Amino acid sequence: MLNSYSSADKVLLAVDCIIFGFDHEGLKILLIKRDFEPEKGKWSLMGGFLRKDEVLDSAAIRILDNYTGLQDIYMEQLYTYSEINRDPVERTISVAYYALINIENHNAELTQNYHAQWFSVAQAPKLIFDHDSMVEHAIRRLRYRTSIKPVGFELLPEKFTMRQLLELYEAILSKELDKRNFISKINSLDILVKLEEKDMMSSRKGSYLYTFDKEKYDAKLLNDFVLNL
Amino acid sequence: MLNSYSSADKVLLAVDCIIFGFDHEGLKILLIKRDFEPEKGKWSLMGGFLRKDEVLDSAAIRILDNYTGLQDIYMEQLYTYSEINRDPVERTISVAYYALINIENHNAELTQNYHAQWFSVAQAPKLIFDHDSMVEHAIRRLRYRTSIKPVGFELLPEKFTMRQLLELYEAILSKELDKRNFISKINSLDILVKLEEKDMMSSRKGSYLYTFDKEKYDAKLLNDFVLNL
Repeated sequence: MLNSYSSADKVLLAVDCIIFGFDHEGLKILLIKRDFEPEKGKWSLMGGFLRKDEVLDSAAIRILDNYTGLQDIYMEQLYTYSEINRDPVERTISVAYYALINIENHNAELTQNYHAQWFSVAQAPKLIFDHDSMVEHAIRRLRYRTSIKPVGFELLPEKFTMRQLLELYEAILSKELDKRNFISKINSLDILVKLEEKDMMSSRKGSYLYTFDKEKYDAKLLNDFVLNL
Repeated sequence: MLNSYSSADKVLLAVDCIIFGFDHEGLKILLIKRDFEPEKGKWSLMGGFLRKDEVLDSAAIRILDNYTGLQDIYMEQLYTYSEINRDPVERTISVAYYALINIENHNAELTQNYHAQWFSVAQAPKLIFDHDSMVEHAIRRLRYRTSIKPVGFELLPEKFTMRQLLELYEAILSKELDKRNFISKINSLDILVKLEEKDMMSSRKGSYLYTFDKEKYDAKLLNDFVLNL
């Protein structure tokens, strides 16, 4: 009998939340100062232990809310980390979750009651435990996903300008993109609808507003994006 | 203090291994009959509990070897499942791993000493617990990955015919593909090298053999495959 419930070792299971934020300055990450030992006072992801009565998705939502006041954030499970000594106190397996949110949409929730703070990803402080490698992993996942399907639904207002979409991609990919080339690539995907309206704030002539054509987008199978098999 | 190690609940952590196999008949899955209660005698993935002294990757390798004799299989972590009652005996969180292997290359290891059995994915029996949804999830991941980058390195002999490559894709995608269209799509990726040699077994005139150009393949960033940003 290889598996016996009673003789199996139980472990602590933690959930860590990686929240990326996007504004006109680029890609940022939300961090807290850990408020207990070990590593008290060091920068950390928002983390906590899974409870008996909850599933991992709910634990991630509870922990994020606890530390930041952020609610209704859709987080996706990233990976489960199990290095033996990743937590020096006691063996703890951690399931990381991540999300990418529009910072301006959530400023009101992130009041001074909470001590969470945004950092530019490029200038973030060193984090406790293996949190730095979790963040690296999440950035790879984010870029990977961007490469497969257009992100943006959750991140842009319902109507947006091409410049806003470009800036989102530039933030995620951490590089400047050629605007003309970008527009032609995006248009070739045939998932945007150009509206009659213009955004008059951005320039004297105004900039056309676009919206995603969700039906067309959903109808595209993932396969279509690459090999069209 | 939100987090206190001593008051946190510990859980059982299991690892389940999803092994897909590929041969000329299509995509298959390797299953075992569970040899202990509950659900004794029912078909199941290869699973077991994480040990104190091992990381998840090692547990997956150990468990697969225990049940099947398969060694040196590179498995990738898929997802962590935490539904409260997924295991009726006791709350158990399970981390699923998956791999896709060439069945013919591993026939020798899968002797009758082990009771693992291949099933066509389309005709596999109902599995215990939430194993069916794990398998569905793994198939989605497999198709998703196929849509981003050509799989095949691990699955085909070093030199292969276009027909072999086509059959691999047909197995993963579970549909017939138009051969002419497939060849032109694959060629447009510019990652195959056509060899001077022919495979003379397949037809009287023979079929050209191909090999992957690993350098070209690696040089292609993921981004290139979609938006070329």
